[in-house]
Amino acid sequence: MAHGYDAGRLDLPFVGVATFGKYPLCLDWDRLDADVAILGAPFDLGTQWRSGARSGPRAIREASTLFAFGHAGAYDHEDDVVYLPAGQARIVDVGDADMIHTDTLQSHANIEAAVRKILKRGALPVTLGGDHSVNIPCIAAFSDEEPIHLIQFDAHLDFVDERHGVRYGHGNPMRRAAERAYVTGLTQLGIRNVSSTAREGYEDARAMGSDILSVRQIRKLGVDAVLERIPAGKRYYLTIDIDGFDPSIAPGTGTPSHGGFTYYEVLELLDGITRRGTVVGVDLVEVAREYDPAGVTSILAAQVLLNLIGRVLHNRA
Amino acid sequence: MAHGYDAGRLDLPFVGVATFGKYPLCLDWDRLDADVAILGAPFDLGTQWRSGARSGPRAIREASTLFAFGHAGAYDHEDDVVYLPAGQARIVDVGDADMIHTDTLQSHANIEAAVRKILKRGALPVTLGGDHSVNIPCIAAFSDEEPIHLIQFDAHLDFVDERHGVRYGHGNPMRRAAERAYVTGLTQLGIRNVSSTAREGYEDARAMGSDILSVRQIRKLGVDAVLERIPAGKRYYLTIDIDGFDPSIAPGTGTPSHGGFTYYEVLELLDGITRRGTVVGVDLVEVAREYDPAGVTSILAAQVLLNLIGRVLHNRA
Amino acid sequence: MAHGYDAGRLDLPFVGVATFGKYPLCLDWDRLDADVAILGAPFDLGTQWRSGARSGPRAIREASTLFAFGHAGAYDHEDDVVYLPAGQARIVDVGDADMIHTDTLQSHANIEAAVRKILKRGALPVTLGGDHSVNIPCIAAFSDEEPIHLIQFDAHLDFVDERHGVRYGHGNPMRRAAERAYVTGLTQLGIRNVSSTAREGYEDARAMGSDILSVRQIRKLGVDAVLERIPAGKRYYLTIDIDGFDPSIAPGTGTPSHGGFTYYEVLELLDGITRRGTVVGVDLVEVAREYDPAGVTSILAAQVLLNLIGRVLHNRA
Amino acid sequence: MAHGYDAGRLDLPFVGVATFGKYPLCLDWDRLDADVAILGAPFDLGTQWRSGARSGPRAIREASTLFAFGHAGAYDHEDDVVYLPAGQARIVDVGDADMIHTDTLQSHANIEAAVRKILKRGALPVTLGGDHSVNIPCIAAFSDEEPIHLIQFDAHLDFVDERHGVRYGHGNPMRRAAERAYVTGLTQLGIRNVSSTAREGYEDARAMGSDILSVRQIRKLGVDAVLERIPAGKRYYLTIDIDGFDPSIAPGTGTPSHGGFTYYEVLELLDGITRRGTVVGVDLVEVAREYDPAGVTSILAAQVLLNLIGRVLHNRA
Amino acid sequence: MAHGYDAGRLDLPFVGVATFGKYPLCLDWDRLDADVAILGAPFDLGTQWRSGARSGPRAIREASTLFAFGHAGAYDHEDDVVYLPAGQARIVDVGDADMIHTDTLQSHANIEAAVRKILKRGALPVTLGGDHSVNIPCIAAFSDEEPIHLIQFDAHLDFVDERHGVRYGHGNPMRRAAERAYVTGLTQLGIRNVSSTAREGYEDARAMGSDILSVRQIRKLGVDAVLERIPAGKRYYLTIDIDGFDPSIAPGTGTPSHGGFTYYEVLELLDGITRRGTVVGVDLVEVAREYDPAGVTSILAAQVLLNLIGRVLHNRA
Amino acid sequence: MAHGYDAGRLDLPFVGVATFGKYPLCLDWDRLDADVAILGAPFDLGTQWRSGARSGPRAIREASTLFAFGHAGAYDHEDDVVYLPAGQARIVDVGDADMIHTDTLQSHANIEAAVRKILKRGALPVTLGGDHSVNIPCIAAFSDEEPIHLIQFDAHLDFVDERHGVRYGHGNPMRRAAERAYVTGLTQLGIRNVSSTAREGYEDARAMGSDILSVRQIRKLGVDAVLERIPAGKRYYLTIDIDGFDPSIAPGTGTPSHGGFTYYEVLELLDGITRRGTVVGVDLVEVAREYDPAGVTSILAAQVLLNLIGRVLHNRA
Repeated sequence: MAHGYDAGRLDLPFVGVATFGKYPLCLDWDRLDADVAILGAPFDLGTQWRSGARSGPRAIREASTLFAFGHAGAYDHEDDVVYLPAGQARIVDVGDADMIHTDTLQSHANIEAAVRKILKRGALPVTLGGDHSVNIPCIAAFSDEEPIHLIQFDAHLDFVDERHGVRYGHGNPMRRAAERAYVTGLTQLGIRNVSSTAREGYEDARAMGSDILSVRQIRKLGVDAVLERIPAGKRYYLTIDIDGFDPSIAPGTGTPSHGGFTYYEVLELLDGITRRGTVVGVDLVEVAREYDPAGVTSILAAQVLLNLIGRVLHNRA
Repeated sequence: MAHGYDAGRLDLPFVGVATFGKYPLCLDWDRLDADVAILGAPFDLGTQWRSGARSGPRAIREASTLFAFGHAGAYDHEDDVVYLPAGQARIVDVGDADMIHTDTLQSHANIEAAVRKILKRGALPVTLGGDHSVNIPCIAAFSDEEPIHLIQFDAHLDFVDERHGVRYGHGNPMRRAAERAYVTGLTQLGIRNVSSTAREGYEDARAMGSDILSVRQIRKLGVDAVLERIPAGKRYYLTIDIDGFDPSIAPGTGTPSHGGFTYYEVLELLDGITRRGTVVGVDLVEVAREYDPAGVTSILAAQVLLNLIGRVLHNRA
Repeated sequence: MAHGYDAGRLDLPFVGVATFGKYPLCLDWDRLDADVAILGAPFDLGTQWRSGARSGPRAIREASTLFAFGHAGAYDHEDDVVYLPAGQARIVDVGDADMIHTDTLQSHANIEAAVRKILKRGALPVTLGGDHSVNIPCIAAFSDEEPIHLIQFDAHLDFVDERHGVRYGHGNPMRRAAERAYVTGLTQLGIRNVSSTAREGYEDARAMGSDILSVRQIRKLGVDAVLERIPAGKRYYLTIDIDGFDPSIAPGTGTPSHGGFTYYEVLELLDGITRRGTVVGVDLVEVAREYDPAGVTSILAAQVLLNLIGRVLHNRA
Repeated sequence: MAHGYDAGRLDLPFVGVATFGKYPLCLDWDRLDADVAILGAPFDLGTQWRSGARSGPRAIREASTLFAFGHAGAYDHEDDVVYLPAGQARIVDVGDADMIHTDTLQSHANIEAAVRKILKRGALPVTLGGDHSVNIPCIAAFSDEEPIHLIQFDAHLDFVDERHGVRYGHGNPMRRAAERAYVTGLTQLGIRNVSSTAREGYEDARAMGSDILSVRQIRKLGVDAVLERIPAGKRYYLTIDIDGFDPSIAPGTGTPSHGGFTYYEVLELLDGITRRGTVVGVDLVEVAREYDPAGVTSILAAQVLLNLIGRVLHNRA
Repeated sequence: MAHGYDAGRLDLPFVGVATFGKYPLCLDWDRLDADVAILGAPFDLGTQWRSGARSGPRAIREASTLFAFGHAGAYDHEDDVVYLPAGQARIVDVGDADMIHTDTLQSHANIEAAVRKILKRGALPVTLGGDHSVNIPCIAAFSDEEPIHLIQFDAHLDFVDERHGVRYGHGNPMRRAAERAYVTGLTQLGIRNVSSTAREGYEDARAMGSDILSVRQIRKLGVDAVLERIPAGKRYYLTIDIDGFDPSIAPGTGTPSHGGFTYYEVLELLDGITRRGTVVGVDLVEVAREYDPAGVTSILAAQVLLNLIGRVLHNRA
Repeated sequence: MAHGYDAGRLDLPFVGVATFGKYPLCLDWDRLDADVAILGAPFDLGTQWRSGARSGPRAIREASTLFAFGHAGAYDHEDDVVYLPAGQARIVDVGDADMIHTDTLQSHANIEAAVRKILKRGALPVTLGGDHSVNIPCIAAFSDEEPIHLIQFDAHLDFVDERHGVRYGHGNPMRRAAERAYVTGLTQLGIRNVSSTAREGYEDARAMGSDILSVRQIRKLGVDAVLERIPAGKRYYLTIDIDGFDPSIAPGTGTPSHGGFTYYEVLELLDGITRRGTVVGVDLVEVAREYDPAGVTSILAAQVLLNLIGRVLHNRA
């Protein structure tokens, strides 16, 4: 019996407590034993427009159960591959980092501690934001790891240094990452139109080793040429701001920017990245349920993550 | 250290996987060891107007975390009581009964099996619907128990016998209950205006031992007089259709009916019931997230249930 | 066989094209033969705040099907009466008056012509707005009828004479009605707080024979005392602005005003009115689906209308 | 006078009872006399994720009135054709098949009976779902007809055989169709990413004569090459699952899947199909108003259907 | 000409840029010259459940224009008073305090500076939150003023001292206020059911001079008796948490709590307070547009504030 | 100091009263002194389907503040240009034209007077609709100006002459414009599928000098070829109906039509237009907040307008 519907439960997508992908819940992090650990980081004190990104982790978990058909894995007929084969994908949901309202630094510290714990336990950390500032502690947690190359999908450059004392908001993470010695480079994909980063920010980014490409530039180059620009064989940390996608499929976010990616544009890039090097960390940020009345944004986030994780595990094996 | 915020996590309401009240998840039902077991029954094939009640269990779980301030229990200054004191309320979330799409009888059978298991393990079953037809298997599960008196909060009598072969829809549960030998009587509270039950249904209900009171009649009688009409010292099964409440606070349901209960009207009756006899089973049904854009309906459901459970445990002790 | 579920269809509320109460559609007005004719008047060019009332007729029709359990009539256990007994209530939906965008006077003229036709065919006209200005042509259509007394349920006095040339907007209808010789008086119920009518408007209204009562004043007086203030034995035209109800149950309207009526407060007054004289015309206005995400406002409108029509027919017989 | 605005009513889209395309209502099916019959099948007991598809028929009818400018037919300047010329398109709305809550088989039987009746009366059946399981009785109704080739637009293969006894849910219809002798082949268009059908289902489908193409594969092939793969000159039954479209334009459905069709991709395929053979039946399924806050999904469904019907009639003539 | 519609513009509520009540905008605070100054404080980093309160100021401004019929003032027929007579009510909108994302203390400091400026210019500060933590800087700004008595309308006691270092969140403001020497007492109205404040918080509050009353207790006492408990002739600072109102009329807030105030219950208390002493400061907090799909919550906030300001000015004169 | 965050306020997008782009408010039109004047025209009496477009001006203003990062201007890294450099772009918000409910002609006259005033003061008028009929008075206001060429982005031709007396509705503006002597030609872009304009309308349009292109035709031609068809060096008036865009990014409009433009397709055409001649007037119409739950439509409108204005000013300089 291949996948056991008969012996067990049917477990339809809408049934049961919503852990990520209906994978087991592991709240005792000292006992974490898995290939992939899903961590929630429901922090939105770093937003400059609409708040709400704290709802992201629960929204994505809920949506992810749609793809938890589970028993037979996820068959993709175009690739002719069964991703996430039942019984082989060792994925757990480790719940959320502890958030401290009013306190950015302590909340970030708690996220960093959680990611460090996951890394220590040997699992791939996949962090569900929260606003993009949660990337700052996620990257900070890699300080004892081998160097990483950062690949960002986003509408915005997020390269502001400091304004009015703010250094840890959702406009700052790529700057903070670029400052770290163990971040050897950045590839920033989807950047377009106006944002909080001024001209100087772009100049600084390029000076600090960033490769910046807009959606239109990527479409002109094609997937392969874009992949070629990413240093091969590296350890990649992927940070996916849902607003890198077009507002038509990702309305549920704080700062939508028109002219974004379609689903398969990103999936094909992600697929290529999993083949080009090693994915050592992932965050997906800025999903806000408040602006997602039809749920398509959290469904997008879940669909991207489960497909990405499936490809990471498949190509790693 | 009274309640341990210092030693542990702050665990704000919006943080973490949404189990009911943030109580532990117990998916291995053979190891269930608790005073109260929360079971989801996300079934909505029995609805006659808007579907969506399958979203109830997840919606209520999510809302219930608002009330999971937890560490210090739930202090009610009007009663001067700390309900659900931390460390003493042994409550678990047992996940959902298995649902079989297209198949009413099998889905109901799975709910019945789950409630039977909870009863066997000595816990109080609290079932989250799902439409009101899930009450049918909940009551069926008591066939080996001591007799029960059924107390219903609802806008509708739900006393239809059979039409076009339908005997297990959400218009039938009270009829099905009244037919059982171990249901010694019914108190039906909040019944008002027109519904699917015709005049004959009311006549049958009264003939089969039901006491039917509208919201206006209850307001005229007062809480004490209503409680007096309920047989004292019995084992009570409570079935709470969220549409018993006024649509102003419970819009998120399939068949809203204007002129319903306010929150404290029901809470005061529930409080009295927990003092008048023994609550041996509870279901709360017909919450549908699709029609609850501000979330007030699922918050109401969670607020009612946590206050009810707190009083059941407090008054039992 | 009392009401024929067996022989025919089950016809659940959500099934079928949404005519009002699932009553027959009669688009050939020359063949109209009924006791009650439901007419849509989807006009909202008269609004001063949020538009959208043109969606009212379709929204109310849709909601009314919830109450179309039909085969057995509408049994009210508090009154112990079956209202709208199947086969006896001769009600038809005559569709909508023709609307001419940009053109208030022509749209109103078309409403007036439709109501005149209904009156000529001997049916009770029940008009679904549309904004409150549709009351102007409805009243105009009674110019050849016996005198009428106008009873209004509303938050606002709607007694503005003219501003910037506007005489036919939704702030003017009661003034326009009071000017007509065949309107012998007005009872204005629910009027509260600030609105577009200035102090002079109130003075004019009282001078022109209006009795103005707020919700709080009505609560203090009680239903019977309020009914006593309405001239007995008259022909009543009822105009029900949904914003007379509290925004908690009627959010779906252009200009909500807090502190309004509950459902039974209005139903009890309506019930008394149907006993105190003859209802010769009804309109229910200002339902706007755009602000009614849970549908409770259109459900309220339908519930009020079907209960009112049931009582009109029951008490007339 | 070409199209008679002057003599009659303006009949703006928002005016009047919402029958499909404002075409006449024919509830006496024995008198059905038309080229095209629109049937509602508001069934959603077959869904595995979000319910709500029972709202589809009314939502599509309402949206279709936007395209009922009517008097002059539907002029498409790109084709330079007036589709659905007034007075020539003999289309009727026959209301809904009778639904029996809790009972899948009886509801399906009623749908089958209705489609059989339409076929018997010589009209083209166009069925508005409801979830995709309503395709099962639609196809069953063709058992006495000449063989058909089935063309599906969908994100999901819907080729599950049986699980936990379920054979008539919304994951099963293409399997059920493929089993029938008079279904000579299947063309399955838009199939992508993970769904409830496992790898074996795809293998079975291909073995049973199905041609499966993803959206990306179709884009690479082009419209003409795709049309070439469909057997020419056949009798085609078209089943259009709205989730074949991209969630950006079809959020209002139970199980959205990113990476779907745009509007014109489908319209151009549909146009080609109406020229390549004879369309003998159509269903459009899985529209759920609950997840369609801006109404774009039901507008899409109506726009697709009216354009399809126009082309069927135009190319047939 | 009393109010000049003829000479000027009609200025319907939906017309024009949304300043509070359509009163003039004064962004140069050094030139502030008014009786009342409306200040936005769009801060929501202090929330423990749903964020979104940063949208409050704009939402309330937008809603307030509904009540800007303006030219003739606001006539209340129950009081027979024209409040806010045109040309006499010197009210200005001073825009918002500057917010610094990620930074609670600096954002609070900016609010405090703004309120100090308003006080220095001799105007009554009316602050639009933002979450309830914005009350902390509002009260801080009174350090150089005569003592004040604080009157709170709220579901929650907000009397938490400190947890995990948090002292300036939305659960702390009443504690922070009670600690100040110039706050001579607190009256806390509407407090009910469970919240983040534990039993010790209530004990501390009473020990520090607070009078705590639930909604039910207030209903039993009556308006006059409640007013009697407030020290007479004092300088009152009013802090109105919109969640003091019932969720039925105030769904648009972060932490709704069932069983709250109706509109007139609060208005009558506010009216009495304006007669019993001097209102020297006001804040209205926790309105969140994200959960207010029909806009009734922001309409409530605007209606309460304009009625309150009208009574403050009327009774002061 | 280049852009002065340090000296002044941070002024995050969500902070402050929502004028367009946070530019200054100028309500004294006799003192208007600017390069660009933003005028609201909240008129929706001309709509034939869903109303609501009166909410457009406020919705667009609110959304435009997202792009008011301001201090450093709007840097577009693809163009390597800082548009709208701080201190150089002289833009003001002049509030709204006065609307007269029920009265189309007077409301239009007020819009015309406002645009005339703007033209007289030497500023570029940018009008925010309102429905597309507001284009009629906008064009009328150019009667004393040099001739203009009209460029329209729209799904619909809007070329109806007259029906039932209606000449100034939202289906008529392009016909009205074409009739004017000083309109030397029309370019109509994006026109597709069925609309209220019948075949004769298209024939008339072409006869009166219109160039009509569908979205698909434009895609085939490419941006440059389309620009070539527009007479060079002319004075262009741009009228942008938001429904020219695809419903996926512009759901918030009265009459969505599938198959529309993406964001960059329009931006590239607009960019080319600002280089090909002189833009002398702009309107953007048909945004309706009621159907825009995630706000993406008003964000699109604001993003298009600010990018357009930036390019007009940049290329003019």
